[in-house]
Amino acid sequence: MKIKVVAKILEANERIAQENRRIFDDAGVFVVNLMSAPGAGKTSLLEKTLSEKTDLKIGVIEGDIAGSDDAERIGRFGVPVIQINTGGACHLDANMINEVIKELPLNELNVVFIENVGNLVCPAEFKVGEDMKVMLLSITEGHDKPLKYPLMFQESSALLLNKIDLAPYLDVDINKIKRDALSLNPNIMIFEVSCKTGEGIADWVKWLSNKTEKG
Amino acid sequence: MKIKVVAKILEANERIAQENRRIFDDAGVFVVNLMSAPGAGKTSLLEKTLSEKTDLKIGVIEGDIAGSDDAERIGRFGVPVIQINTGGACHLDANMINEVIKELPLNELNVVFIENVGNLVCPAEFKVGEDMKVMLLSITEGHDKPLKYPLMFQESSALLLNKIDLAPYLDVDINKIKRDALSLNPNIMIFEVSCKTGEGIADWVKWLSNKTEKG
Repeated sequence: MKIKVVAKILEANERIAQENRRIFDDAGVFVVNLMSAPGAGKTSLLEKTLSEKTDLKIGVIEGDIAGSDDAERIGRFGVPVIQINTGGACHLDANMINEVIKELPLNELNVVFIENVGNLVCPAEFKVGEDMKVMLLSITEGHDKPLKYPLMFQESSALLLNKIDLAPYLDVDINKIKRDALSLNPNIMIFEVSCKTGEGIADWVKWLSNKTEKG
Repeated sequence: MKIKVVAKILEANERIAQENRRIFDDAGVFVVNLMSAPGAGKTSLLEKTLSEKTDLKIGVIEGDIAGSDDAERIGRFGVPVIQINTGGACHLDANMINEVIKELPLNELNVVFIENVGNLVCPAEFKVGEDMKVMLLSITEGHDKPLKYPLMFQESSALLLNKIDLAPYLDVDINKIKRDALSLNPNIMIFEVSCKTGEGIADWVKWLSNKTEKG
């Protein structure tokens, strides 16, 4: 019974996600759905990405249960940013994006990042109209995450292992994370990054730039 | 429309949670709903708690999307443990607990830990029949978490700040976490712990033992 409700919600969501995708496509904008657990460093990754010299013209949609801290952090970079407060919901859905899509100056942009609510589960189930999903995993979360939260790893085009600067202080098997992520999704691109030291950021941004050109 | 569906699910959940609570009460078992983001260290906390010398007779219900790693870790301590796989759902609900409640030897126990799915959002919305909620926050997740995920802090009787051994390597303002948590919930008990070094565990277990006696 409960499963039926979920299926219905997912169906409606899929329809609206396709509409969003069409709007983004018409404007020539490549859309990244950025997902992670809380505190893995999504906003920090966007800050580092915005700090790199590129031809990317980036806009950002910030999704949070409450507050506008993240939008304020991104706003300092002088790029268009919209904050969505889900008011309790643990993920963004296509309808939330649909309601704000016209607030972005899409014709001036070529990439839009949608920073999802911090959650390793539901965001992976709800398309929002993205061209690709990117997942951030802080290595402090441990090496058991791919097998415990398989869907997000399966759905993502890239996996960024963040806080790699903390590796010497943790009992975490980074090779196991990579091995398990690749077993779930052999096509996933894996980057080791630190949003604190900047390690690995240039490689990620270069890869992203190539992706968006193809898009 | 979507909100109506959620309300209905929550109402049904509340009814079953009360039934669970009655079953636990009748058996004289104190129930802790243990919640955190993925990788904050819930299972490690249970391992450390089980390692302390106490009069507690503990049983554990493990909630995960998939897999039985956590139940296997707990099983090594020779305590009754049941693994629930939610098959995609991002939280435990009362019905899932209701279905396994009779598999635990309740008459031989005085505390049951229910380790929820790693997620800072939905677990706080769904009662499972617990006497209290306890929240674990890894300090690696950053000091912005209380204001971004307020409900879990508001609902929890205790907040354990885990991985405190990593404090020297992080730019995290632990006092801000405490301040914001207390502003959301003036009654929340805060412990600084490390499941790696064992720091703070004895204080937590002592507090828990007192709680369960009162319960």
